[in-house]
Amino acid sequence: MDEYNIKNFLNEYSQKTKPLLRSYFKEKIKEASRVGDIPVELLERFAKMAEKGKNIRGALIVLGYRLARGYDMASIYDASTFMEILHAGLLVHDDIMDQDDFRRGLPSIHKQFEKYGKENGKSLAILVGDIAFYLSWDKLLNSNFPNDRLVKAGKIYAKFARNVVYGQALDVINNISNTNQEFILNIFKYKTAEYTGYLPLLIGITLGGVDDRKKLTALEKYGLSLGWAFQIQDDILGLFGSQEKTGKPVGSDLREGKITLLVHYVIKNGNKSQLNYLKTILGNKNLRQANILKAQEFFKKIGAYKHVTDLGLKYVNEGKKSLAFLTNDKNLKNILESLIIYVMNRVV
Amino acid sequence: MDEYNIKNFLNEYSQKTKPLLRSYFKEKIKEASRVGDIPVELLERFAKMAEKGKNIRGALIVLGYRLARGYDMASIYDASTFMEILHAGLLVHDDIMDQDDFRRGLPSIHKQFEKYGKENGKSLAILVGDIAFYLSWDKLLNSNFPNDRLVKAGKIYAKFARNVVYGQALDVINNISNTNQEFILNIFKYKTAEYTGYLPLLIGITLGGVDDRKKLTALEKYGLSLGWAFQIQDDILGLFGSQEKTGKPVGSDLREGKITLLVHYVIKNGNKSQLNYLKTILGNKNLRQANILKAQEFFKKIGAYKHVTDLGLKYVNEGKKSLAFLTNDKNLKNILESLIIYVMNRVV
Repeated sequence: MDEYNIKNFLNEYSQKTKPLLRSYFKEKIKEASRVGDIPVELLERFAKMAEKGKNIRGALIVLGYRLARGYDMASIYDASTFMEILHAGLLVHDDIMDQDDFRRGLPSIHKQFEKYGKENGKSLAILVGDIAFYLSWDKLLNSNFPNDRLVKAGKIYAKFARNVVYGQALDVINNISNTNQEFILNIFKYKTAEYTGYLPLLIGITLGGVDDRKKLTALEKYGLSLGWAFQIQDDILGLFGSQEKTGKPVGSDLREGKITLLVHYVIKNGNKSQLNYLKTILGNKNLRQANILKAQEFFKKIGAYKHVTDLGLKYVNEGKKSLAFLTNDKNLKNILESLIIYVMNRVV
Repeated sequence: MDEYNIKNFLNEYSQKTKPLLRSYFKEKIKEASRVGDIPVELLERFAKMAEKGKNIRGALIVLGYRLARGYDMASIYDASTFMEILHAGLLVHDDIMDQDDFRRGLPSIHKQFEKYGKENGKSLAILVGDIAFYLSWDKLLNSNFPNDRLVKAGKIYAKFARNVVYGQALDVINNISNTNQEFILNIFKYKTAEYTGYLPLLIGITLGGVDDRKKLTALEKYGLSLGWAFQIQDDILGLFGSQEKTGKPVGSDLREGKITLLVHYVIKNGNKSQLNYLKTILGNKNLRQANILKAQEFFKKIGAYKHVTDLGLKYVNEGKKSLAFLTNDKNLKNILESLIIYVMNRVV
C-alpha cells in the first residue's frame, strides 16, 4: 500500500464516521437546547471543529479492532469516534494554554468565544473541553460492545488520558526550564506517542476482546514508534509546514519559545553566534514570514532538520520491525506499515 | 436525627473515606513520578485540596446505595470517592473562570501555580482539573461492582457531568445578560441541583442494582430539592457566611457581578435609589469588609434575604414530602430528612 492508498484508507474512515459524528452531535445539541442557548452554541462550535480532524487516532482504533479479528465493523466505527471527540477536547484546552489563535483552519475555540469578552472566551473554551471529555465517555460507554470490554477499555482510556495531561504539564514547564533530548522525548512519549499511537490501537484490540500479553507488547512497540514519529513530524511541520495545509500558523512553536527537538539540537551543537541568533527568534512574538524563512534555512544549515528527521525515520523503522510480531494478516500488515511511513511524510 | 447527628454522619463518612482517598492519591503520585516532577506536584496539590471537601456528594452516593439495600459498604465507600475527586476538579476549573483566589481555606490551584508565572498558573490548573476528571473515571471503573452496573453508572455520570458544564456556561454568560428568577433557577438546576443532589443518589442506587422507575422518580424529586436548597444556601453563604468557615472570601459573588437570587430580587423589587446602590456594589472589585456589612444590611432590609431563604425552605419541604415514596426504612428516612434540613442550615 503506497501513500496514495493510505490516504484513501484514512478518507474512507472519515467518510464512514463523519455522518456518525454529525448525527451524534445533532442529538446532543437537541439535548443541550433544553438547558439553554449558550450550551447549544458551545456544542455547535465544538462539533464544527471536531469534524475537521485528521482522524488518525480513530482509524487506529479500527485497525486495533481488526488486529483482534473483530467483525462488527459498524459498532467499532461508531465507538472509535469517542477518541476524535476526546482529542478535539484536548486541543481546545491546549490552544488556551498555548494561546494559539488558529486550529484546523478556524479560529480556535477561545478566540471564537471572545465575542463575549476575552476572559469569557477562555472560560467558555475551558468548558467546551470539559464537555468534550464527558461526550467522549458517553460515546464509548454507549457503544455496542459487551460491558466487560467497555469497562476494560474505559480503564485504559482513564490511564492514558492522565498520562497525556502529565505530558502536557511537562510541556508547559518545558518552556521555562533547562532540558535535554531525553527529557523532550519523554514529554513526547506521554504527550503524544502513547496517546496517539498505542492508546487507540489498544482500545481497538480490547474492544475486539484480545488480551494476549505478547501481542500487546508488540502493539505497544509499534504504537509508540508511530506516536513518536507523529510528534516529530508535528514539530517539523510546525516550522517547515504550510499553514494552508496544517491549519495553524507556521512558526508558532518558535514564537511561543518551545524547546522543540529542532531548538534543542541548536542549543547543544550551535556555536556562539548561532546561539545568539537562536535567542533572537526563540520566544519572539513578532516573527514575520521573512524571519520564519530565515529560521528554516538556519535549522537546515546547522543540521537540526536532518538530525530530527533521521530520528523520526529511526522510529519508523523500529515500528516496521515490530509488525512481524503483531499479525500474519498481510493486508493489515501492509496498512500498518504504510501508515507509519505516512505519519513521517504527511504535510497535514 | 438532629443537626448534631447529621454532622456526625458526615464526619463518619469523612473518616472512612479520607484514608481511602489518601492511599489512592499516594498510588497515583507514585505512578506520576515516573513521568516527571511537575505531574507529581500537580497531584500533590490537588490531593491536599480534594481531601478538604464537605463530602456531601460522596455521602449521598452511600445513601443511594443504602436505598438499594446494598450491603457491600467497603466497596461503596471506596467507589463514592470518585465523586469527591470529580467535584474537586470542577472547582479547580471554576476558580480559574471566576478568578477566585481562595478555595477550602487554601489559595486556589491556579494561584498556587502562579509561582511558574501567571499564565502558567492557569494552564497548570486547567490540567489539574482535566487530571481530576480522568482520576474520577479511574476510581469509578476500578471499583468493586459488576461491570453492567459500572457501565450504567458511567453513562449516568457522563450525562449529568455534561449538564453541570452547560449550567456553568449559563453562569458565565449570566454575568453579562439580562435574566429572571426562572432563568437563575434553571442554571441552579443544571449547575447544582441535579449534580449535587440527584446524581450521587442515582449513582449509589444504580451501583446497588436498583432500576425501578417509580423509586427513581421519587429519588429525583428529593435529590433536586436537596440540590436547589444547597445552591440557595451557597448563595446566601456567599454574602452572609463566614470566610473562616466557608474557606472563601465573603462577597465574592458581588465582586464578580453575579446575578444571584439575592441580586435578582433587588433588580425586580428595588426602587430607584436601591437600584442605584446595587449598581455601586455589583461587580465592584474594591468592596471591603465595611461595604460588605452594609450590603448585608441592604439585602436584609429590602427583603431579599427573606425571599431567598423562604425559597430554600420551600425546596426543603418539597424534598421532605418526597421521602414517603422513597423508602420505608425509618432510619434512612430520618437521615435523608435531617440532611436536607442541614443543607439549608449549614454554615460551611
